[in-house]
Amino acid sequence: MYSVSVRDHFMIAHSFTGSVFGPAQRLHGATYVVDVEFRRPELDTDGIVVDIGRALDTVRAILGALNFRNLDEAPEFTGRNTTTEFLARVIFDRVVAAIHKGELGAQAAGIEVVRVALHESHVAWAAYEGRVAQS
Amino acid sequence: MYSVSVRDHFMIAHSFTGSVFGPAQRLHGATYVVDVEFRRPELDTDGIVVDIGRALDTVRAILGALNFRNLDEAPEFTGRNTTTEFLARVIFDRVVAAIHKGELGAQAAGIEVVRVALHESHVAWAAYEGRVAQS
Amino acid sequence: MYSVSVRDHFMIAHSFTGSVFGPAQRLHGATYVVDVEFRRPELDTDGIVVDIGRALDTVRAILGALNFRNLDEAPEFTGRNTTTEFLARVIFDRVVAAIHKGELGAQAAGIEVVRVALHESHVAWAAYEGRVAQS
Amino acid sequence: MYSVSVRDHFMIAHSFTGSVFGPAQRLHGATYVVDVEFRRPELDTDGIVVDIGRALDTVRAILGALNFRNLDEAPEFTGRNTTTEFLARVIFDRVVAAIHKGELGAQAAGIEVVRVALHESHVAWAAYEGRVAQS
Amino acid sequence: MYSVSVRDHFMIAHSFTGSVFGPAQRLHGATYVVDVEFRRPELDTDGIVVDIGRALDTVRAILGALNFRNLDEAPEFTGRNTTTEFLARVIFDRVVAAIHKGELGAQAAGIEVVRVALHESHVAWAAYEGRVAQS
Amino acid sequence: MYSVSVRDHFMIAHSFTGSVFGPAQRLHGATYVVDVEFRRPELDTDGIVVDIGRALDTVRAILGALNFRNLDEAPEFTGRNTTTEFLARVIFDRVVAAIHKGELGAQAAGIEVVRVALHESHVAWAAYEGRVAQS
Repeated sequence: MYSVSVRDHFMIAHSFTGSVFGPAQRLHGATYVVDVEFRRPELDTDGIVVDIGRALDTVRAILGALNFRNLDEAPEFTGRNTTTEFLARVIFDRVVAAIHKGELGAQAAGIEVVRVALHESHVAWAAYEGRVAQS
Repeated sequence: MYSVSVRDHFMIAHSFTGSVFGPAQRLHGATYVVDVEFRRPELDTDGIVVDIGRALDTVRAILGALNFRNLDEAPEFTGRNTTTEFLARVIFDRVVAAIHKGELGAQAAGIEVVRVALHESHVAWAAYEGRVAQS
Repeated sequence: MYSVSVRDHFMIAHSFTGSVFGPAQRLHGATYVVDVEFRRPELDTDGIVVDIGRALDTVRAILGALNFRNLDEAPEFTGRNTTTEFLARVIFDRVVAAIHKGELGAQAAGIEVVRVALHESHVAWAAYEGRVAQS
Repeated sequence: MYSVSVRDHFMIAHSFTGSVFGPAQRLHGATYVVDVEFRRPELDTDGIVVDIGRALDTVRAILGALNFRNLDEAPEFTGRNTTTEFLARVIFDRVVAAIHKGELGAQAAGIEVVRVALHESHVAWAAYEGRVAQS
Repeated sequence: MYSVSVRDHFMIAHSFTGSVFGPAQRLHGATYVVDVEFRRPELDTDGIVVDIGRALDTVRAILGALNFRNLDEAPEFTGRNTTTEFLARVIFDRVVAAIHKGELGAQAAGIEVVRVALHESHVAWAAYEGRVAQS
Repeated sequence: MYSVSVRDHFMIAHSFTGSVFGPAQRLHGATYVVDVEFRRPELDTDGIVVDIGRALDTVRAILGALNFRNLDEAPEFTGRNTTTEFLARVIFDRVVAAIHKGELGAQAAGIEVVRVALHESHVAWAAYEGRVAQS
């Protein structure tokens, strides 16, 4: 299995609901350094998994829609705890949608698995990994 | 599949038995920077894989029991080479036991896989990954 | 010149005032991974610059007072942009005060320079470095 | 499942064919920081996955054969784009061959999976992972 | 003294002249991960050393002029070994010129020192640090 | 000012004397990831600060003399606490001696400052920096 990974980041404010979160129930924030991995069993006809430049552009656009925001006021997350692992899934869904829309090129249809990891500090990170459902 | 990972470290002395180890047969030591990853297919009702604060506390306690020791004199390792990969398994077993004892919270029972990686330098690391047997 | 450095982190929300900040004028947040360096020309009688454990505890306490907060509502920062470089200076001042109060031990009086670096992402960081004024 | 990983690097020149590569169609170059991971379900009789020193020596030899070269002039790659993911596979094949030749020791025959990751920058990397076919 | 640092990278081919370089006399290449640090004794009226976004844009433009090139064919480097330390100085000069041209904003005139570090691998890097001569 | 830095590591056992060290008074150990920086105001006639290959070889030899040892039994350290900062100085002295002996080449006589940093974990490191006294 081949893979290609790219890294970018975004910075947000949010708070959590539930006593398990302790002081993180207060409004605070985070920098998330995001790694997006694309996997496929064989390379495409250019000899690549996905174009790295295009992958970086796509991830930048997806993170740009979240960057410099207070997620507590984001309508799409109403009633949800925007935890690191939850956001990994959100970004996963948007990367998969970008593949289906062809934003990563026609040959990116051969990508079978995507993994999104969010590093919230030097001592904690979370990820979501799933298959790219065929459209 | 979702995952959450936390990082901590411990520092020990030990020596190895067997000519394959060359100069590492002498008493020496290591800092192990330890990453513990928890995986589960769905988030719990708080929207998390496991509470990161609790995970950090649990890992700190497990590593604290090994920290600042000469493993050659640890009764539980008599007759064993405490290699990096062996220690990854030891810590894996103790993390799984902590899950079963409820130290990571009742909802941590949903964790299916644990992976423990020990970095012994900037050029070498080892890991053990296994399923959390249901108790 | 000798130095010892320790690392910890904190997570906050804030916003900036001034068109130079562009989208960062909106409420957002950051994880700051903080490195605090202590320098002195000679080691103390224990053969150290400062006790690493004590340094980690002191830095943890200083960052703990900032952690999980919305800095826009912090009375001590009213009317100030809590930029990365500004916060580096704030933490520098608090580390120096801790040295003067003896929280790092009597021998820490020999520390001459402190440097505080805050990493806000994998591509940007800031620092403040200054002398420890003799009390 | 146990694993051991080692890291080394090599530096090459090359160019790519195909409009997808944009400016990378020009002759340029890269440093590849290479991680090679060895996996097996049980430790060998020495309590290891593979001897780390021997693994480092083997990887150094394999990368040494590529180091300081213009891959556009390497006969073995004629007509191929030597992309990061392609090179990950090349190195995978050579590591597997080294295992089969016994260069990692007789007990290394128990290694079942090898993963080779090449970091081309702080924001992009690629990997190839596969089973070690039994000879 | 305050500082702000930003990171980006570029990828080039080149060769060296002189027996000291051994196999690096052959045409090869490198990824350089570049850190540019800006220092000044006091913050500007916005509370910053330099705008991080603008600093990233300026560094991207400077590195873009070198990226995906064979430096052996760059007219500006004829007769020079484009070593890591030499390139650090080249980039330093271009960053200083950008400050003087006002590309980092009028207040960037207060920057007194610039340091440029180029990481060529995980085990080697070089830097050039100098004062920003007042124009 | 120009600089070149190289990285390597060594692994040792030791214990400390003095109540300030708490549990580190017990026999334990550490991996030290070592960065050695060489500084000079002008490049030599080859366009370098020092040959990186030669620097790596010299550092490897110096660290090799410490590697896989119990420093409590090293005659040269009798009666001393082999703390991270103390060891940084020991290695500094040996690097300077190597420069004076010409092991880094005749042109390395132009090196004016050496800095040695030892990383003992992901959250703590120490360094010694000094001038290369002219012989």
